[in-house]
Amino acid sequence: MGEIKVGVVGLGIGRSHARAVDGKQGAKLEALCDVNEELLNKFADTLGVEKRYTDFYEMLKDDSIDAYIIATPDNLHQDMVCAALRAGKDVLCEKPIALHNSECKEMIKAADEAGRLLMVGQVCRFAPGFKMAKKIIEEGMIGELYFIESEYAHDYTEIRGWRTDPEMKRHPVTGGGCHAVDLVRWLADKDPIEAFSYSNKKVLVDWPCDDTTISLLKFDGDLMGKVYVSTGSKRDYTMRTVIYGTKGTIICDNTSPHLSLYVEELGGMNKLLGDQMKHIAHKIPVKISSHNVVAEFDEFYNALVDRSTLKITAQEGARTVAICEAIIKSSETGMPEKIEY
Amino acid sequence: MGEIKVGVVGLGIGRSHARAVDGKQGAKLEALCDVNEELLNKFADTLGVEKRYTDFYEMLKDDSIDAYIIATPDNLHQDMVCAALRAGKDVLCEKPIALHNSECKEMIKAADEAGRLLMVGQVCRFAPGFKMAKKIIEEGMIGELYFIESEYAHDYTEIRGWRTDPEMKRHPVTGGGCHAVDLVRWLADKDPIEAFSYSNKKVLVDWPCDDTTISLLKFDGDLMGKVYVSTGSKRDYTMRTVIYGTKGTIICDNTSPHLSLYVEELGGMNKLLGDQMKHIAHKIPVKISSHNVVAEFDEFYNALVDRSTLKITAQEGARTVAICEAIIKSSETGMPEKIEY
Amino acid sequence: MGEIKVGVVGLGIGRSHARAVDGKQGAKLEALCDVNEELLNKFADTLGVEKRYTDFYEMLKDDSIDAYIIATPDNLHQDMVCAALRAGKDVLCEKPIALHNSECKEMIKAADEAGRLLMVGQVCRFAPGFKMAKKIIEEGMIGELYFIESEYAHDYTEIRGWRTDPEMKRHPVTGGGCHAVDLVRWLADKDPIEAFSYSNKKVLVDWPCDDTTISLLKFDGDLMGKVYVSTGSKRDYTMRTVIYGTKGTIICDNTSPHLSLYVEELGGMNKLLGDQMKHIAHKIPVKISSHNVVAEFDEFYNALVDRSTLKITAQEGARTVAICEAIIKSSETGMPEKIEY
Amino acid sequence: MGEIKVGVVGLGIGRSHARAVDGKQGAKLEALCDVNEELLNKFADTLGVEKRYTDFYEMLKDDSIDAYIIATPDNLHQDMVCAALRAGKDVLCEKPIALHNSECKEMIKAADEAGRLLMVGQVCRFAPGFKMAKKIIEEGMIGELYFIESEYAHDYTEIRGWRTDPEMKRHPVTGGGCHAVDLVRWLADKDPIEAFSYSNKKVLVDWPCDDTTISLLKFDGDLMGKVYVSTGSKRDYTMRTVIYGTKGTIICDNTSPHLSLYVEELGGMNKLLGDQMKHIAHKIPVKISSHNVVAEFDEFYNALVDRSTLKITAQEGARTVAICEAIIKSSETGMPEKIEY
Repeated sequence: MGEIKVGVVGLGIGRSHARAVDGKQGAKLEALCDVNEELLNKFADTLGVEKRYTDFYEMLKDDSIDAYIIATPDNLHQDMVCAALRAGKDVLCEKPIALHNSECKEMIKAADEAGRLLMVGQVCRFAPGFKMAKKIIEEGMIGELYFIESEYAHDYTEIRGWRTDPEMKRHPVTGGGCHAVDLVRWLADKDPIEAFSYSNKKVLVDWPCDDTTISLLKFDGDLMGKVYVSTGSKRDYTMRTVIYGTKGTIICDNTSPHLSLYVEELGGMNKLLGDQMKHIAHKIPVKISSHNVVAEFDEFYNALVDRSTLKITAQEGARTVAICEAIIKSSETGMPEKIEY
Repeated sequence: MGEIKVGVVGLGIGRSHARAVDGKQGAKLEALCDVNEELLNKFADTLGVEKRYTDFYEMLKDDSIDAYIIATPDNLHQDMVCAALRAGKDVLCEKPIALHNSECKEMIKAADEAGRLLMVGQVCRFAPGFKMAKKIIEEGMIGELYFIESEYAHDYTEIRGWRTDPEMKRHPVTGGGCHAVDLVRWLADKDPIEAFSYSNKKVLVDWPCDDTTISLLKFDGDLMGKVYVSTGSKRDYTMRTVIYGTKGTIICDNTSPHLSLYVEELGGMNKLLGDQMKHIAHKIPVKISSHNVVAEFDEFYNALVDRSTLKITAQEGARTVAICEAIIKSSETGMPEKIEY
Repeated sequence: MGEIKVGVVGLGIGRSHARAVDGKQGAKLEALCDVNEELLNKFADTLGVEKRYTDFYEMLKDDSIDAYIIATPDNLHQDMVCAALRAGKDVLCEKPIALHNSECKEMIKAADEAGRLLMVGQVCRFAPGFKMAKKIIEEGMIGELYFIESEYAHDYTEIRGWRTDPEMKRHPVTGGGCHAVDLVRWLADKDPIEAFSYSNKKVLVDWPCDDTTISLLKFDGDLMGKVYVSTGSKRDYTMRTVIYGTKGTIICDNTSPHLSLYVEELGGMNKLLGDQMKHIAHKIPVKISSHNVVAEFDEFYNALVDRSTLKITAQEGARTVAICEAIIKSSETGMPEKIEY
Repeated sequence: MGEIKVGVVGLGIGRSHARAVDGKQGAKLEALCDVNEELLNKFADTLGVEKRYTDFYEMLKDDSIDAYIIATPDNLHQDMVCAALRAGKDVLCEKPIALHNSECKEMIKAADEAGRLLMVGQVCRFAPGFKMAKKIIEEGMIGELYFIESEYAHDYTEIRGWRTDPEMKRHPVTGGGCHAVDLVRWLADKDPIEAFSYSNKKVLVDWPCDDTTISLLKFDGDLMGKVYVSTGSKRDYTMRTVIYGTKGTIICDNTSPHLSLYVEELGGMNKLLGDQMKHIAHKIPVKISSHNVVAEFDEFYNALVDRSTLKITAQEGARTVAICEAIIKSSETGMPEKIEY
């Protein structure tokens, strides 16, 4: 297989994807697309990209493009992704793959019918702190999991644009909280069956949805989860995540240079502790890369090359969206809601 | 009023209370009581206390004692406290005041009929980090609260004794988690109306109750709460508590020498931050005193002297217990439960 | 031996010692002494001590007192300690034992001639973080030491009283910095042979001595040391201490609930680190007790009882003072100075 | 001015520079040079660079190259830099600019005679934490400086290659410690006049130079400095730097997401502190970029364009080297050494 030619659509977060493509040996940033022509030209000049489109469907006619990265507003994902798939292109779609599971199913169907790859960019799975946590769990170092909590607490006070548009109906739980929801189910290596939540709106009072939602998740086999989503939090952004197992605990996030690991087996340090109820925190160094788009594109690129290793499939994205929908529904009904995948 | 003579009953945690009485000018540690005679004598020797009882009801006949501190196992509180009140004594009862709201009501009634003071030892209200948090909230520095979370994560693996006795029916949510529940409602300055929870038992598998419970609380006026209680957690003990307000956020606990405060008003430091989405953590120094029994007894003593300032009344203790009961009930029914005060 | 009767002289820091005596079984706080009669009476009332003196030499005539704790201003130590020793009393003298090694030698001579115990209260040796560091070194976990640094950075801006009196000639290096100097030589388990230092006075401009001194220490056998003393530092007080060994490093202080330990042997965690140049910080829990006077008095009490276990002898105090003197001298001569013990 | 064509020599650390050139609009990575042909070809392939040299002097004959980045072993800097300057090229030379001030003077002379720019890559000046510290100092927030300490503590145990070659005579103080030395003088905005140091070799016992050096610096006007250099430290790498001023203190490094600032003026938080001796740490968020070569090349590029703004001149590099030489000399003579610029 020769050099893979990639087109990037949507130059908000998509600028990061474009740079990742540009820096990847074996891939070529073939074309860029954005409705904002000024932004498009300025950015394309910077990276020296000649093919520029303000209309995605015009772009689709360009036969030279092998694969698309769709990083447009969430409510546009379904149509654009399906169109690209039906045009015979492989697609990496920015998270959330869509705002509703019904849309996701259409997208999966389109990919199946076209026989093309559809990956969802759940970028948190590539953050070094979370990758280290996954590795520790898989090594069996903390035993069997019984509770996982993750939070997406971000201050959107100064954010404007499409996210605040009532027409978009972009609920923060799906829009940003899907990071935390996806993280919990990926670390758990299983899916929850029920969700319960409360929500309110006290900070972003002129936004169309509640800004803060706290939710509990119930898994088969006695595992429990918690996800906190807030887009009005007056504090530093981080996705603090705590994973409790029968033999140890992990405290991690995507903004600190260390992950904290507590384990029963202390590796020769027991002699320092007279009181057995005390615990040693082992601070494991990790790199900081809260949005590791380079690694995300590497995974997509590798799947394009070998056609078989794709892990973060559209099905994965769909299950995450289904959980978000149940969380939102529970906050409206006031009752626990079964998750419908 | 002369020197107040105090009797302490139950020399587990009660040893701390006894020392606090012993160190307080104006109070006298008059007598000690415990069913374990060896422990009783050893400890009484240390503090030089002559009057020693293995039978509380014998002790009650001693007219010289003005006030009692009851620090016996939770299921004994009701009978002992009521007996002391009916004997005309003021009482400080260790938390939880009882295991059920129905018992609490009996105790409150007994206090009212006897015209005596009944305080509950919710000692977390005296931890310097939490007192500082309360002060910051009262100063209005973080605006209106919209979410409070607190956790009681403790490793009981090596604990044995009455807490593991099935007859005691001491649920961890009431037994230890009442610390976190009481903290949330005290910081909120209001009471929740509904609770929802999940629980499981994966660590202390031979204990009589679930060891881990995660619960959400709903308050009037759009405030939400979360309480996590786990007695099997493999990590360092702390009561991490986060208080989110419309103008700021507090992150605090009872084991760190600092509280973190994030506020919109940066006090002249705005000039350092070009990017307005970033937040400065102001680390406020606090003393560490996770179980500040000295300050707790000071409050009791002051109430004994002036007969009017008692803040942590039996009613306060009862409301905290009522919330714990709803949390436990929800974990059994799988449904949100109204809290019955 | 019956109950040991102790007199405490100097009710500034001495109040802590008095409370430690009062709380110790086997010891009795027999008498208190301070030149400030109002302070004396108020404090003696609190602890219920009847014998009160404003004149130490009057107090000395009281035959019932077995041992003295001298906690007066530093320049008074020599005369008072020697008088007590010559009166046949055992003495615990607050650090620094004296301001000059010549005085120390007189005090040691007096103790020898009288056959009495003379302990110096280098209280940092009892801080839990530093005790843990000493234990780790003794376990051989960090190999052979090659550099130790300690700092005494304290903000004295609001302190007034005898410390600012030019007549006292209390240099901060000896007065407060002796904590850090003593710590370094105790952790090293050997004594430096040479010191070099610079100093200045930029904050406490109206104080009689330089407020900040930075010094290097040279030990036999290639060990090096650094001590930083500053009484004008605008930051939180702590005695940050770093101990570098050929197999590991300890970072500790007396105000944090953890000590950080880095060791080559990672105890089963090597599998988590691909890059061998990275190091895991093991955070060992320690209690916080920056001035653990209770443990200090315990050691004195035990020595009084068995007459043989005294570790922090006057000779120890004298060697610490000798180092302080060399540091101060070097800051004046601008040359490295041999330490004269 | 058109696109500036840059040649990079030395593909160890120089790979970072090459990537920075490659990513900079207005600059072109024209050619690469390394004596290791395999490494050269592999890296050149990655970035798609056609012109490749294993002989620097051959490369110099290529007239199309406008500017050079010299990132070869330290002892080769002088000859290569001078040759490039005399060929009429502008040069960015990796730190240390040379191992001896005498070499530096030759290089400065060559630049002056050729009328070309010579910048030294003291990359720490671009680390976000240190830039923030510089800004705080310049804002006057911490008053007049009286002590600055910085450390370069790195574990070189697994490093091999030219740094361990006795022929290179690369002393760690100049080789790596120049980072900390340069940082101190840049933050101080003045130069020290005298140095004193001790050194030893306990970890890298088969290396040609001492691995650990602790040194003090004396500046005019009562400012003092400390630099610690260790290439055998068993701990995580960081350049911890503390800056003490008469009105505040900064604690910062190049590996943490925060800088700690203590200031007298608390910005409305004074009401929280009853005890005036306590200090609030304001944790200012900073990005982590311990080796921000991108920003370093930006500065070089801007100087190439406007020919006037160069800040980190060869003279700056030379003064840093002169201090390193005095530190090394003092460790050999055992005496304080005047610094000869």
